[in-house]
Amino acid sequence: MAWDPEFEVAFNPKTVAIVGAQRKSPPWGDFVANLQRAGFRGRIYPINPKAVDGEIRGLKAYPDLASVPEPIDLVIVTVPAAAVASVLEDCIAANAKNVHIFSAGFGETGEEKRIEMERQIGEIAKRGGLRIVGPNCMGLHVPAVGLTTWDVFDPKAGPVAFLSQSGGHAGVFTGDGARFGIYFSKAVSFGNALGFDSTDFLEYLATDPETGIICMYLEGVKDGKRLIELVREINKTKPVIVWKGGLTTWGAKAAASHTGSLAGEEEIWDAFYRQTGTVRVDTLEELFDVTMTFLYLDPLPSRRIALFGAGGGNSVAGADVCAREGLELPTLIEKTLRELGSFIPPEGTSIRNPLDIGIVLRDINLLLRALQPVAADPGIDSIVFAMPISLVLSGIDRAALASQDAQVLLPAMDRQVRKVLDTIIKFDHEDIHRKPLIVVLQAGMGPPVPGLRGRVQRELYEANIPVYLSLERASRALGKFIQFHEYQRKAS
Amino acid sequence: MAWDPEFEVAFNPKTVAIVGAQRKSPPWGDFVANLQRAGFRGRIYPINPKAVDGEIRGLKAYPDLASVPEPIDLVIVTVPAAAVASVLEDCIAANAKNVHIFSAGFGETGEEKRIEMERQIGEIAKRGGLRIVGPNCMGLHVPAVGLTTWDVFDPKAGPVAFLSQSGGHAGVFTGDGARFGIYFSKAVSFGNALGFDSTDFLEYLATDPETGIICMYLEGVKDGKRLIELVREINKTKPVIVWKGGLTTWGAKAAASHTGSLAGEEEIWDAFYRQTGTVRVDTLEELFDVTMTFLYLDPLPSRRIALFGAGGGNSVAGADVCAREGLELPTLIEKTLRELGSFIPPEGTSIRNPLDIGIVLRDINLLLRALQPVAADPGIDSIVFAMPISLVLSGIDRAALASQDAQVLLPAMDRQVRKVLDTIIKFDHEDIHRKPLIVVLQAGMGPPVPGLRGRVQRELYEANIPVYLSLERASRALGKFIQFHEYQRKAS
Repeated sequence: MAWDPEFEVAFNPKTVAIVGAQRKSPPWGDFVANLQRAGFRGRIYPINPKAVDGEIRGLKAYPDLASVPEPIDLVIVTVPAAAVASVLEDCIAANAKNVHIFSAGFGETGEEKRIEMERQIGEIAKRGGLRIVGPNCMGLHVPAVGLTTWDVFDPKAGPVAFLSQSGGHAGVFTGDGARFGIYFSKAVSFGNALGFDSTDFLEYLATDPETGIICMYLEGVKDGKRLIELVREINKTKPVIVWKGGLTTWGAKAAASHTGSLAGEEEIWDAFYRQTGTVRVDTLEELFDVTMTFLYLDPLPSRRIALFGAGGGNSVAGADVCAREGLELPTLIEKTLRELGSFIPPEGTSIRNPLDIGIVLRDINLLLRALQPVAADPGIDSIVFAMPISLVLSGIDRAALASQDAQVLLPAMDRQVRKVLDTIIKFDHEDIHRKPLIVVLQAGMGPPVPGLRGRVQRELYEANIPVYLSLERASRALGKFIQFHEYQRKAS
Repeated sequence: MAWDPEFEVAFNPKTVAIVGAQRKSPPWGDFVANLQRAGFRGRIYPINPKAVDGEIRGLKAYPDLASVPEPIDLVIVTVPAAAVASVLEDCIAANAKNVHIFSAGFGETGEEKRIEMERQIGEIAKRGGLRIVGPNCMGLHVPAVGLTTWDVFDPKAGPVAFLSQSGGHAGVFTGDGARFGIYFSKAVSFGNALGFDSTDFLEYLATDPETGIICMYLEGVKDGKRLIELVREINKTKPVIVWKGGLTTWGAKAAASHTGSLAGEEEIWDAFYRQTGTVRVDTLEELFDVTMTFLYLDPLPSRRIALFGAGGGNSVAGADVCAREGLELPTLIEKTLRELGSFIPPEGTSIRNPLDIGIVLRDINLLLRALQPVAADPGIDSIVFAMPISLVLSGIDRAALASQDAQVLLPAMDRQVRKVLDTIIKFDHEDIHRKPLIVVLQAGMGPPVPGLRGRVQRELYEANIPVYLSLERASRALGKFIQFHEYQRKAS
């Protein structure tokens, strides 16, 4: 199947029919409820021949597609696998050609009979000119218009698109994205890819003005050559981040029974990444971190960073971690060292790179004073600020912290967090040298304060500052980010 | 310096003198207060010639060591670097020979003058027969007797010892250990290692009956040959886990300015790990995970696991992650598959290995029914149960969850968590096949519930079940754990 621009209306449909909608909520995948909760802007038509009094969740239910009084921009098929073929015939009859088949139980089971069933619905679709997403997938997710089949929904839209052969990954990445400041233009879970494959959607996203970054989770791909051509071209203007599942032997076996994909061998995919400059991620965690990096950082001119931290052991560990991901920690120039040495005592500190200067983490004014000369240092191009989360609390009265009384603790925390965030944000926005500030929230001594990490993340993302949850994760993402731009510079 | 058994009394001292104790709490390192908070069982003698009315934190203060009315088992020196030499002379005069030098500002600064100062105190110590820990370190930490210089303190003792060249790492590992079910016999932060080095303490811990697992953070080591000999021997009875900081070029530079250590090259340390079978960890996170694994698992007979999960994409990703760390996911035998197939529908599931059976994660009785045949399968030796944290909540009324009203939410959560934990613990304790159950808490869709993860961890550790915070972390730790035992089996 090739991309068909006529499908584009399905990303902003005026009408959606849900075939197999039920009055009693299923344990999951209650699409009518999910669309309602998401504030879907179009009209929803529940279809169920058995809907006795003709109503489902307050909406008039219809016995079949043919009785819906207007053209249907998108049909979502949620009936059992064995009934899908006949629903597709109804689609053809009703001239409703954009079809998302949620139903599972086809080729992915590995059973002869069900593989044959998938082949048959493929033939029906072809004969009727249907444009198919799925089967065995969650379909389309477009926050801007409230179109979603997801349970959890964040209504904010953003420039990230996600093409996923796994509905689970699609749900988690789009659902938890907000925690990492990531918002979506479109996501598509396309499952067994009987109809459109990843390459088809890629063709669409390449020119989609709402999409600036394209992420993909792939298990198999039907036309590898087309994928390479497309990605190589798209990477010039929009970074493509690809997580390939099933690269290991055991993973490949699992992929076969998930989407029926014949997962490729690792060497082939190594070559794919090498030849296209595509950003490689291997876990969900990396997908979050790398995507967030592309969202919140402009290309970095070099791998040279200054690392701010606290604790000598932490500095050594931190330098190791950065170095393993290809970052460089050059010696600071004499002028910088002199300026820092003028107010930082030598005991228990280390005025080098990494900077082990716990003292400035306890006095927020010193922090600002320390950041400025480092930003001015011509040998470094960005500042990684590894902030133990306990710093945020170090200014709070110990009694308040120990009291565990929310009435005392929360306002004190609030003031302290405000002060720390204001300082960081002020520095970042006023830095005349425009060295990017990269924040790492490190777990520290003492019990974790519920909700604190999330709040700090949120506020910094809002100020357009990237935040990571460990130096390992930050370094890995930065390494991949820099590598992407190095490749693009070399290629152009 | 060689190990001196006369120092052993310092791990359970009847008397501790703190030289340089102050009435006004310093911003950190208030050792008198910390010992009091920890419920130190011995007597504390604050020493400060300027303590005007002779009292510090309710204790009688003494102008010098000589005036303390009884023998001192441990002296903690907290005066500025320049004053340390004269304090050591006082120690000699008072016949107080076990000395922890907290003071920093010596060789680690790289300054000629301060390197010379360290050399001088070394000579004084040698001449007077002092047994030195430090300088530039946090010293001894013995929860069982309330001896600690740490700010944060958990009084529970356990079988893990930690030797650390970084006071920060020592504080974080012992302070946060409880979150991972890790409790300590002894920890020593020994800084510049002017006196005892890691190998000396190793010698002591080798036969310490309270210590079953030895963890180390090293930047440099003075006698590499002795380290190899000791570790090779100790590994036969107590696993030794070593995190070597400063393995990379940039990390080595940082180590030089932290403890003055000449960090070795990566190849040398590669050989060390290979020749001794020592468990290698490269980050603090790995240190937590691997130590917890040794605490909560008996040796596994093989690398063959069954992976329980939810979501097809998750299964593929999970298999990849496990495979990358050397775990194996063999096909389940026919009997197992038949039994599982008898109650698990084929749609949206995958009855293989990994098991993608989200349905059993929504009905806790089905979970028990699914675990049993898998445990009986002769082809697998342990079960990794990747539990999306949202499972724990899936039984809670959606309205309660959305209400955010703690009065409604918390009791509902409580009941649900109880049910899930009871099921897991019941299975683990009653499993006649005695296949170890390994739990992975996976972040899932939806907002994180504050405190939930910590509670689940705590309860499972109490039931002696290992819990990890991601499958990546679990696989990596299990891989290292299995490798250790494989090495020991081969070596013996």
